[in-house]
Amino acid sequence: MSSVVGLANNNKQLLRIGIAGIGTVGSGTVNLLNSNRQEITRRLGVELRVTHVAARRDPVSCDLTGVKISRDVMALTEDADLDVIVELIGGTDTAKQLILGAIAKGKSVVTANKALLAEHGVEILAAANAQGVQVLFEAAVAGGIPILKVLREGLAGNQIESVAGIINGTGNYILTAMLANRDFADVLKEAQQLGYAEADPRFDVEGIDAAHKLTLLASLAFGIPLAYDKVYTEGITRLTPMDLLCADELGYRIKHLGIAHKTEYGISLRVHPALIAKTQLLAHVDGVMNAVVVKSNGAGSSLYYGAGAGSLPTASSVVADLMELARGAAGVPPLAFAEVHEQPLLAIEDVEQAFYLRLWVKERPGVLADIATELSQQGISIEAIIQKPLWMQGDRVPIILLTQPVREGAIDEALLRIQAHTQADILKIRLLPKA
Amino acid sequence: MSSVVGLANNNKQLLRIGIAGIGTVGSGTVNLLNSNRQEITRRLGVELRVTHVAARRDPVSCDLTGVKISRDVMALTEDADLDVIVELIGGTDTAKQLILGAIAKGKSVVTANKALLAEHGVEILAAANAQGVQVLFEAAVAGGIPILKVLREGLAGNQIESVAGIINGTGNYILTAMLANRDFADVLKEAQQLGYAEADPRFDVEGIDAAHKLTLLASLAFGIPLAYDKVYTEGITRLTPMDLLCADELGYRIKHLGIAHKTEYGISLRVHPALIAKTQLLAHVDGVMNAVVVKSNGAGSSLYYGAGAGSLPTASSVVADLMELARGAAGVPPLAFAEVHEQPLLAIEDVEQAFYLRLWVKERPGVLADIATELSQQGISIEAIIQKPLWMQGDRVPIILLTQPVREGAIDEALLRIQAHTQADILKIRLLPKA
Repeated sequence: MSSVVGLANNNKQLLRIGIAGIGTVGSGTVNLLNSNRQEITRRLGVELRVTHVAARRDPVSCDLTGVKISRDVMALTEDADLDVIVELIGGTDTAKQLILGAIAKGKSVVTANKALLAEHGVEILAAANAQGVQVLFEAAVAGGIPILKVLREGLAGNQIESVAGIINGTGNYILTAMLANRDFADVLKEAQQLGYAEADPRFDVEGIDAAHKLTLLASLAFGIPLAYDKVYTEGITRLTPMDLLCADELGYRIKHLGIAHKTEYGISLRVHPALIAKTQLLAHVDGVMNAVVVKSNGAGSSLYYGAGAGSLPTASSVVADLMELARGAAGVPPLAFAEVHEQPLLAIEDVEQAFYLRLWVKERPGVLADIATELSQQGISIEAIIQKPLWMQGDRVPIILLTQPVREGAIDEALLRIQAHTQADILKIRLLPKA
Repeated sequence: MSSVVGLANNNKQLLRIGIAGIGTVGSGTVNLLNSNRQEITRRLGVELRVTHVAARRDPVSCDLTGVKISRDVMALTEDADLDVIVELIGGTDTAKQLILGAIAKGKSVVTANKALLAEHGVEILAAANAQGVQVLFEAAVAGGIPILKVLREGLAGNQIESVAGIINGTGNYILTAMLANRDFADVLKEAQQLGYAEADPRFDVEGIDAAHKLTLLASLAFGIPLAYDKVYTEGITRLTPMDLLCADELGYRIKHLGIAHKTEYGISLRVHPALIAKTQLLAHVDGVMNAVVVKSNGAGSSLYYGAGAGSLPTASSVVADLMELARGAAGVPPLAFAEVHEQPLLAIEDVEQAFYLRLWVKERPGVLADIATELSQQGISIEAIIQKPLWMQGDRVPIILLTQPVREGAIDEALLRIQAHTQADILKIRLLPKA
């Protein structure tokens, strides 16, 4: 039932795997292959066997009996017995050298390296294409959720309209905890202690990690070249518990989203906090979990939820890619489209949506009227207002507004004027459109 | 990038498709292929073209310009130009004849026919295997959600522990509406008027449709032969608004679930109403939407949500299967495993879980004590009780109990005794275990 083509050994019963990097995901991959060996072989008719591991440090928490160990990851490219190389060292220098080296030797590659693909994927995928090998990267986005397979194959008959996802578990953990009226800094420290956040948390909380993943999702959804430098990226560091609680009162949750959205004027690529109506399932995705909502012209709205990171969930996606290679599937093109081409992108100023505005202003008679006037002069209608004297700090009081949908440029202009008149400290958060 | 193998015409640029049945899903398939033709060809490098449609009635609401039309569906098997036949006529007699006829002519088949596959799939898949052709059926379960692809490929590196899904949209629509304190019969009538429920609603509300789908899910999850006759099936017709409201008060939603669950003693296959804790995402899947939760030993808990039926969502899955055939993918085995084999099944009496019990009893002093005594004599602990005089009808009052997890056989024995002592009218609903 199964056939294996294009493998170095031309052995139809065995896929020989080299793994570079034996940290969390690498050891998870070895452990998952070991514990599920019988089941995987029963599915596939082919055994997946790790024969060579390369890592600078000693492997921990996995059994490598009988596996060749090298200190230099480039040793994998010289191992003629390997059918596939799995890159799990992270970073963009050595990892890139390793992957290009593997491709040059005619070996397919599986990687979880979102940063490398988002920033250098065009070059890597072109090299793979020229050599007739595959680069698979299901593990690079939303760890245990097979979201790339869904976009590449499951929804392939659709025109994708938008992809919106909670694709950074650390950020979602922080926002979930802040809803219990805890400060960002306090929760971040806890997340670091729990191992959810790195010592340098910027990749997560400033949205860089999510922007890398969104870059991959957007290419698969729309058939556009990987364009990490085109993603508008905003973090969650300015959010306060008050914002989460006010949003809750208005019927929303605040989540850190990666959004790729096609409009008649162009494709919008962005990572930022967003209010999501509690009537939407995505609003109820809590803790370190990830979820991606895909809207398309056939299937409609669908959602994919699961673990976004972790040893075994990420390994689950690595192993799925290995099984695909073992099967010798004719293969979906790496970016899901036989022909990838540029499409117009939409600047964030030109996106039309509703906004949550939080303004800390010096309390005085007429300040709300001044704000409302400036908004109305830009043609912006107000949907809801919360003003809570209880939240007062010194002589400043917060005013919370929800607007009707409007071009972001118009909001920015109004906010500049409001800031000039009132010296308000202003935070603007976008709303995810309802289904 | 794409290659097409095993097609009748050996034409690498074109897949010629015959469709049997041009109702909701058939016309949706034609419409989706027409509206997304450019995008599909750009993804695939191959054009999907419907060249022959066979239907007893005149096609409605789709453009069949240039397409050959036949009244007899068997004409498709005689059309040597076709690469693939799509069976969308439903039912189990003519549909089976058509599919076996297509297979005999060496043509692959795409079908949405869950009843046929659940009841005759063993024979059909064996015939396809013998002829070296494929039978794909993504559209047969959870319309627009690519859940079969997830089980066959995305999670293929895992051992699946359980699959639990809301896989009948009609039933979920009814239960969602009943939560607003509306009667089953009243909501069913509305669902029929809206076209969500058939004039004969038994397939939906008695769980037969869900049992067909569960049969397919269970085979893909565990590599067991299709065994529809082994599924324990219970409908939603005995549920009252009071049950939904009491469950809500206790922190639960009641949903109609299909569950396939592997334990150390065997696999449990069952369709029945179940209480789901509101902390679980599955509890928030409302209206006609479907969702499936998969638990596995690598990816952990993941959930797949989307439209369960409808013209275009179901067509989305039909087209995904057609694209897979066009790609000439080496192919996952039809039931996801190279080797399918029988595994022990667990009788419903032997499943251990918590229970919601609703007892209508004649009010008298000590009746609650009698019930509690019978339960405790079977070793059953009570987790929560609701007794509401407000709900009294005549001289009867409802007592609602939540038990601790216990073997179902023990509950049944206790309930028999309680019934004998108290003449209570008893409803027993199972609880879905928490994550």
